[in-house]
Amino acid sequence: MFIDLNADIGESFGSYKIGMDEEIMALVSSVNVACGFHAGDPTTMAQTVLLAKRYGVSLGAHPGYQDLLGFGRRFVDMSMVDIKNSVIYQLGSLKAFADHEGVAIKHVKPHGALYNAAAERLDIAMAIAEAIYAVDASMVFLGLSGSKMIEAAKTLGLRYAREGFADRRYTKEGQLVSRALAGAVIEKPSEAAAQVLDMLKNGAIKSICGNEVPIKVDSICVHGDHLEAIAFIRALKEMLHTHQVTIKGL
Amino acid sequence: MFIDLNADIGESFGSYKIGMDEEIMALVSSVNVACGFHAGDPTTMAQTVLLAKRYGVSLGAHPGYQDLLGFGRRFVDMSMVDIKNSVIYQLGSLKAFADHEGVAIKHVKPHGALYNAAAERLDIAMAIAEAIYAVDASMVFLGLSGSKMIEAAKTLGLRYAREGFADRRYTKEGQLVSRALAGAVIEKPSEAAAQVLDMLKNGAIKSICGNEVPIKVDSICVHGDHLEAIAFIRALKEMLHTHQVTIKGL
Amino acid sequence: MFIDLNADIGESFGSYKIGMDEEIMALVSSVNVACGFHAGDPTTMAQTVLLAKRYGVSLGAHPGYQDLLGFGRRFVDMSMVDIKNSVIYQLGSLKAFADHEGVAIKHVKPHGALYNAAAERLDIAMAIAEAIYAVDASMVFLGLSGSKMIEAAKTLGLRYAREGFADRRYTKEGQLVSRALAGAVIEKPSEAAAQVLDMLKNGAIKSICGNEVPIKVDSICVHGDHLEAIAFIRALKEMLHTHQVTIKGL
Amino acid sequence: MFIDLNADIGESFGSYKIGMDEEIMALVSSVNVACGFHAGDPTTMAQTVLLAKRYGVSLGAHPGYQDLLGFGRRFVDMSMVDIKNSVIYQLGSLKAFADHEGVAIKHVKPHGALYNAAAERLDIAMAIAEAIYAVDASMVFLGLSGSKMIEAAKTLGLRYAREGFADRRYTKEGQLVSRALAGAVIEKPSEAAAQVLDMLKNGAIKSICGNEVPIKVDSICVHGDHLEAIAFIRALKEMLHTHQVTIKGL
Repeated sequence: MFIDLNADIGESFGSYKIGMDEEIMALVSSVNVACGFHAGDPTTMAQTVLLAKRYGVSLGAHPGYQDLLGFGRRFVDMSMVDIKNSVIYQLGSLKAFADHEGVAIKHVKPHGALYNAAAERLDIAMAIAEAIYAVDASMVFLGLSGSKMIEAAKTLGLRYAREGFADRRYTKEGQLVSRALAGAVIEKPSEAAAQVLDMLKNGAIKSICGNEVPIKVDSICVHGDHLEAIAFIRALKEMLHTHQVTIKGL
Repeated sequence: MFIDLNADIGESFGSYKIGMDEEIMALVSSVNVACGFHAGDPTTMAQTVLLAKRYGVSLGAHPGYQDLLGFGRRFVDMSMVDIKNSVIYQLGSLKAFADHEGVAIKHVKPHGALYNAAAERLDIAMAIAEAIYAVDASMVFLGLSGSKMIEAAKTLGLRYAREGFADRRYTKEGQLVSRALAGAVIEKPSEAAAQVLDMLKNGAIKSICGNEVPIKVDSICVHGDHLEAIAFIRALKEMLHTHQVTIKGL
Repeated sequence: MFIDLNADIGESFGSYKIGMDEEIMALVSSVNVACGFHAGDPTTMAQTVLLAKRYGVSLGAHPGYQDLLGFGRRFVDMSMVDIKNSVIYQLGSLKAFADHEGVAIKHVKPHGALYNAAAERLDIAMAIAEAIYAVDASMVFLGLSGSKMIEAAKTLGLRYAREGFADRRYTKEGQLVSRALAGAVIEKPSEAAAQVLDMLKNGAIKSICGNEVPIKVDSICVHGDHLEAIAFIRALKEMLHTHQVTIKGL
Repeated sequence: MFIDLNADIGESFGSYKIGMDEEIMALVSSVNVACGFHAGDPTTMAQTVLLAKRYGVSLGAHPGYQDLLGFGRRFVDMSMVDIKNSVIYQLGSLKAFADHEGVAIKHVKPHGALYNAAAERLDIAMAIAEAIYAVDASMVFLGLSGSKMIEAAKTLGLRYAREGFADRRYTKEGQLVSRALAGAVIEKPSEAAAQVLDMLKNGAIKSICGNEVPIKVDSICVHGDHLEAIAFIRALKEMLHTHQVTIKGL
């Protein structure tokens, strides 16, 4: 059994530092690099690409809304043509740094509110898919399992990877339980690992309501904002390893 | 005899429109496309690349300081590593649109205050040259004739093109007379054409002080902000044509 | 009978010019000045306040989403606390210029997508109303007649002015017909004047479907982006004058 | 003997957190609040003003260049009219939050590269002084002791406070030794306190070259980015206290 672990990195901006990028790179198989719109800046991108190369992790782009103040977490009602061009622009900027270091951008994962919007709206998912297709049709569209992003990738003939969450509970309809609700977050690495194993072995997990929900995954999203998060990833990896799951980039 | 005519385009930003891009494209052989930092935005860039392709003009990138309010005309005291990465970022973003349309970025011309700074400071010129080299070493560095930009291009082994001005007087040292001074601007197309012919035939022009100043040029910068400017370019072209000068892209 | 005519001004940004501000100021009784978030910049604001003072028009603030690329016309999913503070910030910045010139900010009219969102959502309207209240509780909240903005102003005990449109048709429910639909815009000044007279005399107009819709107005929104628009305002004013309607600031 | 201790605060931006604001507020007598241009945002400003009020520290504005990526530390070649209006804008925005909380802005201290430029160039210092004068002529201009900022304040009849540094060595001409040079920073609180006592008692300090340099101060700049810095301020305060120096706001 194989699974990819992906994490967002390169989110610092000038004097503003966010994230434990080096610690995360040592643990995951894929990274999503901010492209200067919701986070990141040219010099941060150059350094992050170099770091990803050094750690040998699979490089991905992480385009978002051009909303630094909101960190890309606020929906912006952009037109489809603007979304497409905005993503082409961001992919091109990261590609310049990647090409320069001789590494390829393997995947594209939309960030924050753009990810959420693309999960639910096919038109937005298609605008992103078209941007990926325009820049490099061999890149993988990494999107929420079962969402419109996967549908858009299939429609355009793009490769895709289905993302799932180890540390979040799902509703009975298969959506993430809002963080605002109690029980939304899985705090024990053992339970998180169990949920991943369910996804891999059965293609389904148990929802917060107890029913079985089909969720097929190729990649698991992890976070590394602080030391506890790093410890969580480490514990999760060990448990997956115990169950013969190999961590492997997309 | 050959000369390139280049003009800045793609400087609109969202609802803010600047420039008569289509009128200019019909007249010049090369265009410098703003990359979203001092002017331009992703959708404007997409449309501008498409327009350049349709008109068959040679496509160039026009990176500048990230200062929309100042339109890139204010010096910003950036570090060399930030300049290099900022230019890589901008070139990459334009390249994505160009690649998508199947056209190549032939040259890079810095904009405004970045151009002026790179003309005088070798460290800044080198930072830009290194960015060009990093993205595509076959691109031409278009910079002020006799400036540090040309020196930087030679140092790195980059191709270069020397820019001169048809409608501006030069000082006795060969620099542009400040627009703030009387007589800085040449208003008659016939005199502008004569200055270009001097550059092409003699590799030298007569300065505002009367002495001869060596200026070798491969490209002439023209502007098209309003109808008079468009008429000026048209008249200049006719006179150059009369004197067997062929307008040709870099 | 009295009516206020209001127009958006001060929307230029650095080298980017938009609007015929002087022409409009000569025709309207109130102006809404952009505060640097969706349009405008500090020097433009200083000049616009001075111009408003010289023309003797009633000065208003025009806060919007911090989205220059979208010109404030794209909904941004901000939190209520961020909307309130964003509006306080914008009002404060304009107030500094107004205080310096010895003129008062008489009203506040949200711009574009923020206006539309506040018309429909009471929480957003309340966040704006609270910002107005925090900065100067004597300012008038200028919002769409019959909308949540008027409700929010009443709730907080703010003064308010109900805005209507002379050149737009209304649906049978009393909302503006989308510009995307045929017949949405009233092009004849005589018909526009008739609609305003209906609002003033009857407190109701005829919808695009023919039924009567109650609309009470204190201010009419006019636009002055181009020469035809200026001519339209002039014709509208003449007709209102003929019918004994006096144009007067809030 | 009296001295003011001032510190920069409110420099966070959205999800990006910088500074230990609460820890610093408990130690200093004055704070300089970022106004959203080089750092800070509306909600951060609202919270920071509230915090300053709660801690009873003297509130100041900290306007800077509109360069978030450079954190206001890069010189931007703005025109004098733009500097003046930019500072009026920033002061106005902070004033709205201060007025709302019923506290006054007592002083204005330019930030980073704007501070450095205004220390050396009278035209820039005058542009800032005019902005202060325009917004509230009773505010104190806090600037480097012996610099053009103090000269500008005197010229306009503004109140001023002369700033010195406890933890930085001065050159024989009385300027700060560049941080790039060895020995630029004073690391022992006892030596820093001794330098402050020299300033207060003798109006002069010993330069890095050993000669005596006249420096009169009303305020000492301290930083609180990390725990060591906080400990340094605490130790400095204790030693000043031992020598009968009272910490007091401007």
